Parts: sequence; structure tokens; C-alpha cells
Amino acid sequence: MKPRRPPSKTRRPPPDTGGGREKAERWIYGRHAVAAALANPQRHWYRLAALVGHEQEARALVDRARARQFGDGDAIRILDRHQLVEILPDGAVHQGLALAVEPLASPDLVDLVQSAEAATTRSVIVVLDRVSDPHNLGAVLRSAAAFGALAVVLVAHGAPPVTGTLAKAASGAVESVPLARVVNLARALEQLKKAGFWICGLEETAPHMLTALNLGQRIAIVLGSEGRGLRRLVRECCDYLARLPTRAEHPTINVSNAAAIALYELLARQ
Amino acid sequence: MKPRRPPSKTRRPPPDTGGGREKAERWIYGRHAVAAALANPQRHWYRLAALVGHEQEARALVDRARARQFGDGDAIRILDRHQLVEILPDGAVHQGLALAVEPLASPDLVDLVQSAEAATTRSVIVVLDRVSDPHNLGAVLRSAAAFGALAVVLVAHGAPPVTGTLAKAASGAVESVPLARVVNLARALEQLKKAGFWICGLEETAPHMLTALNLGQRIAIVLGSEGRGLRRLVRECCDYLARLPTRAEHPTINVSNAAAIALYELLARQ
Repeated sequence: MKPRRPPSKTRRPPPDTGGGREKAERWIYGRHAVAAALANPQRHWYRLAALVGHEQEARALVDRARARQFGDGDAIRILDRHQLVEILPDGAVHQGLALAVEPLASPDLVDLVQSAEAATTRSVIVVLDRVSDPHNLGAVLRSAAAFGALAVVLVAHGAPPVTGTLAKAASGAVESVPLARVVNLARALEQLKKAGFWICGLEETAPHMLTALNLGQRIAIVLGSEGRGLRRLVRECCDYLARLPTRAEHPTINVSNAAAIALYELLARQ
Repeated sequence: MKPRRPPSKTRRPPPDTGGGREKAERWIYGRHAVAAALANPQRHWYRLAALVGHEQEARALVDRARARQFGDGDAIRILDRHQLVEILPDGAVHQGLALAVEPLASPDLVDLVQSAEAATTRSVIVVLDRVSDPHNLGAVLRSAAAFGALAVVLVAHGAPPVTGTLAKAASGAVESVPLARVVNLARALEQLKKAGFWICGLEETAPHMLTALNLGQRIAIVLGSEGRGLRRLVRECCDYLARLPTRAEHPTINVSNAAAIALYELLARQ
């Protein structure tokens, strides 16, 4: 559906689902997130850990995804509640299912830009500067999927793994929204500019309302971290700075809420 | 600014800030959240715990709020990093400041309704059915403050304390947005109906877009929990059911994102 580089075809050893080695890094858990991962033709996986009582659900999910299993281990491992909690990060809301996965490759900006060139409708890319909270990132990906954003771009350094809390909060959207992790955000914005994207930073002190701008068919909307906002260098890359109609006494909102409103406004509102 | 019952005037013993007794329940932490609490004329507090190096900031914050200190303890207690972490819940993002507080009283629906009657602009109340995640609740309060919602209503049973993670995510908005905790949500909706509010449930399967409805000057917008949606009884209380323009392949978004879009659409978009 969206362009994404195929993962390496090299077979790797299966993770040790009985121990703590894979903790936090490579597990996707929660019903929606696991089902979406197993339904994604780009997603390779090692093993599905299922809580006692979820055997039938686990078999149905795995049956359609056997061709993408890596390693030689059993596809399904049935665990009791204690064993399942043991292999997952603290507080993981697993809903009885956890999938050990191979990470998806980060898509290339060049590929994303090409898919925008082929598009007949408006293309919006969400660019996040120093946003690292996995709940927020997951919610942004989920809204990006719901409103049809082309991709989400963020700085690789300091970004959380695209599994665990992030994948759970995204509720399956990590499988369909390309998430590009770039080394240098300013350079990525220049690349997008050259491909015909207008770069619009969102800031509460900006002179114009987002609705007052005519941003055309290709837009990169840039949001900064909570509290610290956009870095100077990133702000200077923006063609426009816009704000949402928040009140002077409480000008800021959660970054995923701001992204959701921008996507709703730019892509979906009729 | 918004109606709120004054807290009980009875002086209570100060909390034991050196031990774990107050853990999670009564601490507000983070720079914005603490500053907003100390600036709120309705907020009573016991003690400000400040990290070494934050002495000046702490004194400036406390100076304007001395009249509302409960108990006989010192207003400020300077702690090293280890001591501050020790008194707060695990993973608390304190930014060097934590305030031991008296909870704010839950406002009465009758009072809220009266302030809507006095309003000359549109009044919107956000009603949450079974939403208990403190990050989401905090983000909803923050958007409610930013877009000028009248109040947030939720079921008292299972609701998290209005401190800690929730207050941090709300970034000060717990001090200005009335948060009404009700025992029976269906009864609360009936009360709002009698006061002239249209009750609009938000559901991805609803027949109408939110923008297609003319909801008038008093609106209660009802959102359900992630995954489970609105309970049947709550849905039956709604005058309207509306949806946001999400795509069929990914119809759902995070509940705080949905609330933010609804508030933007109903209160702020021009």
C-alpha cells in the first residue's frame, strides 16, 4: 500500500522467548498491533507468544502469515500469565498476545517523495523534531493512518524502538504508515523542498492560523517537542509557520493532538 | 475563572514528604503543572520539594502562594536527585519540582450548567466513558483548556487521581478546567439534556460526520474508551451519533486526539 523497502532476506536465529534477552526491543503486543503485524506482507516474525485460552485466536492469526516466519522455532508458544509478563516490558498491556518481530526497515525519503509525485490527491508528511515519547509517537502514527498521511519522519537519534509501547499506541498503524528515521532533519526538509513540498512549522507563536494558509498539494507539517518546540535550525527551514486557534491563556496542546488536528484540517475535513 | 467548589477549610496534617506514604496519590510534578497549581487560588498545598539548584525558582513560585499552604511544615524542602526520585512514582518526569497538594473538589454538574446558562458563546462539555489512561485524560484536559471547553466529565469509579501522570500530561490544565467525577454517567447526561445540552456521541460507525450536524450553543460530546467504545446505555442517551472523517481501513484514533479534533471543530475553527 505504501512504499517500504523489503527487509533483509537473511535468516537470523530466533529470539529467546523464554528469557529476557528480547525484552522491550522486539516485541509487538496487544490484539490490534499483533494482528496488523501478522497481516503485513512486509513483516517478518519469529514467534507468537499467546496466553493460555488464546490458542484458537493465535492459530488463526498465524495461519495466514507462516511464509514470513523467520527461524526454525515453533510458530506459537502458549504461556501462562506469569510467563508472558516475564518476557515483556513492565506494564505491557498485552491482551494475551505478543509477537517477536524483525524490525521493519526505515523507508527512504526518495521513495516517499516518488510516491507523492504519483499521487493525485494532497500528500502530507508529518515531521517530528525531538518528539521521543512512545505514546505520542504511536498516537501520531495512528492519526496518520486514519487521515491518510503519506509518512512520518523523525530524527533517528533518540527515537524509541518501533515496537512495544509505540506499536501498542499505534494500534496497527506501524504496519501501514512509513516511518522514516533520518540522521539530519534540516537536510531531510531540504530534500522535501526540492521535491515540491511546502514546509510548514506548527508553533503557538506563529503569525498565521493554519487554515489561513494555502499550502497546495504537497505539505510537510513540522511539530516540535513538548515544552521545547522547534529547534532554531529546523524553524529556519520552514517556508511557513502556522498556529492552531488555541487560547492565549493555554496556548499549547499535546503534540499528538496538534498533529491530529493538522492532519484532519489538511487531509480530511470537508 | 471556572466555577469550582472551594476545598474544605479544615487544616490537615502535612504529608510525610520524606517517606513513601504520599507516593503517586498527592504529588503534582513538572514545571508547568507545579507553577499552575501554585498560581491557582483554589489550590491548597503542603510543601514544595525542589531539586538542588532550583532554590530560586522554588522561592519565587511559593512566595505568591503562601496563604494557601496547609500544615505547619516548611514551604520548601530542597532534595538531591536521589531523594526526589524516592518520594515520587517510578519514572516521574519532575523537572526538578514536585508539589504535595490537597485534591481539588469535584465540581457539581449543577454549577457547570449554571455557568453555561450565563455564557454568551458556545458551551462544550467533554464526557468520557471508561477512559482511564492518565496520559489520555491529561491530554484531553489540556486541549479542553486550549480550546475553551466548559468542563470534562468522567465516571468516578476507576478514574485515576488528578495528580501525578495526569496532572503532568495536562500541563497545568487541571487547575483551570473543571473535572467533574460522576457516579452515574447516564444520569449526568440526562441532567445535561434538561439544561439544554445536545448530547453527541462520537463513534467511527456513526452515520453523520460531526461537521454535518448543527449542534447549537450547548453541546456535550461523548467519547468512549479505546477499543471498547461507548457502552450501550450511554449510547442510548445520545441525541446524535457522529463520526470524524477517518478512512475505512483505519477508522479509529487515540481518544485524546479525537477529543482534540472535536473541540477544535466545535469551539475554535474559523
